[in-house]
Amino acid sequence: MSHYAIGIDLGGTSIKAALVSSSDGLLHEVCVDTEADSGPDHVLDRIAGIIADLGHEAGKRPIAGVGIGSPGAIDWDRTTVSKPPNFPGWDRINLAEALTDRLERPLLTIVENDANVAGLGSAHYGAGREFDSFIMVTLGTGVGGAIIYQNRIFRGATGGAGEIGHMTIDYEGPYARSGVAGAIEGYLGQRFLSRQARYKLMNRRDSRIHDLAGEDLLGITPKMLYDAAVEGDEGAREVLAWAGHKLGVVLGSAVNLLDIRKIIVGGGLSAAGDFILESARETLPRYVTPGLHEGLEILQETSGNDVGMLGAAHLVLQHLSVPEGHSFQTK
Amino acid sequence: MSHYAIGIDLGGTSIKAALVSSSDGLLHEVCVDTEADSGPDHVLDRIAGIIADLGHEAGKRPIAGVGIGSPGAIDWDRTTVSKPPNFPGWDRINLAEALTDRLERPLLTIVENDANVAGLGSAHYGAGREFDSFIMVTLGTGVGGAIIYQNRIFRGATGGAGEIGHMTIDYEGPYARSGVAGAIEGYLGQRFLSRQARYKLMNRRDSRIHDLAGEDLLGITPKMLYDAAVEGDEGAREVLAWAGHKLGVVLGSAVNLLDIRKIIVGGGLSAAGDFILESARETLPRYVTPGLHEGLEILQETSGNDVGMLGAAHLVLQHLSVPEGHSFQTK
Repeated sequence: MSHYAIGIDLGGTSIKAALVSSSDGLLHEVCVDTEADSGPDHVLDRIAGIIADLGHEAGKRPIAGVGIGSPGAIDWDRTTVSKPPNFPGWDRINLAEALTDRLERPLLTIVENDANVAGLGSAHYGAGREFDSFIMVTLGTGVGGAIIYQNRIFRGATGGAGEIGHMTIDYEGPYARSGVAGAIEGYLGQRFLSRQARYKLMNRRDSRIHDLAGEDLLGITPKMLYDAAVEGDEGAREVLAWAGHKLGVVLGSAVNLLDIRKIIVGGGLSAAGDFILESARETLPRYVTPGLHEGLEILQETSGNDVGMLGAAHLVLQHLSVPEGHSFQTK
Repeated sequence: MSHYAIGIDLGGTSIKAALVSSSDGLLHEVCVDTEADSGPDHVLDRIAGIIADLGHEAGKRPIAGVGIGSPGAIDWDRTTVSKPPNFPGWDRINLAEALTDRLERPLLTIVENDANVAGLGSAHYGAGREFDSFIMVTLGTGVGGAIIYQNRIFRGATGGAGEIGHMTIDYEGPYARSGVAGAIEGYLGQRFLSRQARYKLMNRRDSRIHDLAGEDLLGITPKMLYDAAVEGDEGAREVLAWAGHKLGVVLGSAVNLLDIRKIIVGGGLSAAGDFILESARETLPRYVTPGLHEGLEILQETSGNDVGMLGAAHLVLQHLSVPEGHSFQTK
C-alpha cells in the first residue's frame, strides 16, 4: 500500500513543494517565490496555499502529513522554527499551528532543519544511498550542512549539529550574517558570492557577465555566473573556482574533526556543479591531515533540487512505511 | 575485587605511566623523557623499562594488561601505531608485539589515540564526568582532540575523528607539520607557540622571559611562558592570551559543526590554565552562531596530567569491571 505526504523545501528565495508517494516517489511538484521580505504572515499564507493546491492535486489519495525542511533552529518538538536567517521579521513560529489556522483541514506537520532534511533525502533517495556516513552540504541562499553518521542524522547535544556554514576559514575574514568572521557562508552564501563576483568582474570587460547582469553588475546572481561559465566565460569560471576553493578549505576542517570522508553537495548552487566542485576537490586534501586522505570524495547530489522535498516528505513517510508482511505484528 | 592495569601516556616529550587499580585509581606513577630523537627502538626500550618497573611495583597484584595512549593513527586492531608526529623514524609499529619482544612476560596491550584516551579518562575520572557529550582538547607537544558523544568516543568512519589540531583557522595561515595551512597546531603546538613567543617578545626587554630563556630567547618554552605569567609578566600573559584567542576560534568551528557545547581542555599546556582559557572563553562565542550560544563552556581538566594515564588504564579495566553480583552470569 502506498502512502502520500507533502514535502516542502522552504528556502529564502523559493518554496519548493511536492506530493510524494512512498512507492512511486515524487508525483507532482510546485515552486513559488518565497517573498520573505513581505514578512512571516505572507510567507505562511503562501505555504498554506501550496499545501491546498497539492491537496487538490492528490484528489482522493489521503495525505498523511506535511514535512517541512526549514532554515533556522528547530525545537525538539519539531513544529517550531526560530529566527530563520533571510526571513525578516521571523522570531519564533510554530509552523504546525500557523498552518492549521490557515488550512481547511488540519494536517500532521513535522519540521526539521533544511540541511538535515536534505541529508535524509540524499541518504534515502539520492547520492547518499551508497554510504553509511557522509557530510551533506547545501549551497543555496545560505550554506547549510548535515552529518549522516551510520545512517542516522547526527544531531549533537540539542539538534543543531552540522552548521558548516558558520565554520570559519579565516578568523580575520569578513563577517557573515551570523556575526562569525570568515564563516564560509560569508563567501558562498548567495548574496556574498554575488557581491564577490561583482567585485572581481567589475573591470573584466571581456566577461559575458556584463551582458547578463546589467550596468555595474548590480543585478548579478550565482545563476548568471553558472550560465556564463557553461558558455565558457573565463571570468565566471574563475569566480566559481574561487568559491570552490573556499568550500574545500571548510570541508577539510570538517573531515579532520569527523573522520567522515564522503561529502555530498546539494542545494540550488550545486547546479553549478563541477565549476565549483573541481576546485573544491583540488583544495580539500590540502586541508586534511594526511592520515585521513584515503577515500576522500566530494560528490554532487544527483537528485538535484528534489532531495529537499523528498527528505521533507520522508519525515512523515518514515513513520508509515511498514515493511510488507509486518502489518499485523502484535508486538 | 580490584583489578590492576598499567596506563601509559606516550607523549612526544615525556612518557607518563601509572599502576592503576579499578577500585582505588592511581597507585604509583613514573615519568621519563621520551627521547624520541633517538629513534623507535630506543623509545620502545624505555616503554618496556617502565612497564617492568611498574610490574615490580605491583608485586603480587596481577596486572591485567597495558593500555597506551599514543599519538598518530591507530589501526582497528588497536595494537598498531602509524606515523606518530614528533617521533622521527616511526612508520608503522605494532606496539603490542614490540613490547612482548622486550618483556619477560607477555601482557595484553591495547593502544588508542592519545586524545581519545584523554577523553575517556576525563569522562570516567575527570571533568567530563558531569557531561554526556563534550569536546576534549589536549594541548601538549601537539594539539589533540576527541569527541565524547552520549558517553562514547565518536570515532568517525575509521576511528580517526577528533583531529581538532588540523582544523584550519586561516586558509592562508602558516603551514603546520601536517601540511595544513593555518591549522591550529601551527599556533598552539609546543614548538610553534615557543617560536611565536620568541618572535613577539624578542624586543620586549622588560619581560622576565629574557631571564628565563637565555640569549635571543632561543631556549624559550611554553612552561617558561606560564611561569613568567604566574609571576605577573605582561609579555608572557599576552602571548598566552594570543594563543587562547586562536583556541577559541577553532573551538567555535567545532561547536558549529557538532552542537556539543561543553569543552574540556587537558594536556601539559593546560597547566597554563586561565592565562589561555580566559581569552579562549572570550573568543569562543564570537565564532559560534548565536543559536548555539546557550550553555557554551570551556573547562580545564581537573585531573591534570593524570587523565591520560587513567584513560589508558581504563582501556584495559573497562573490559574487566564486572558489576558486583554479575560474575556468574551465563548469558
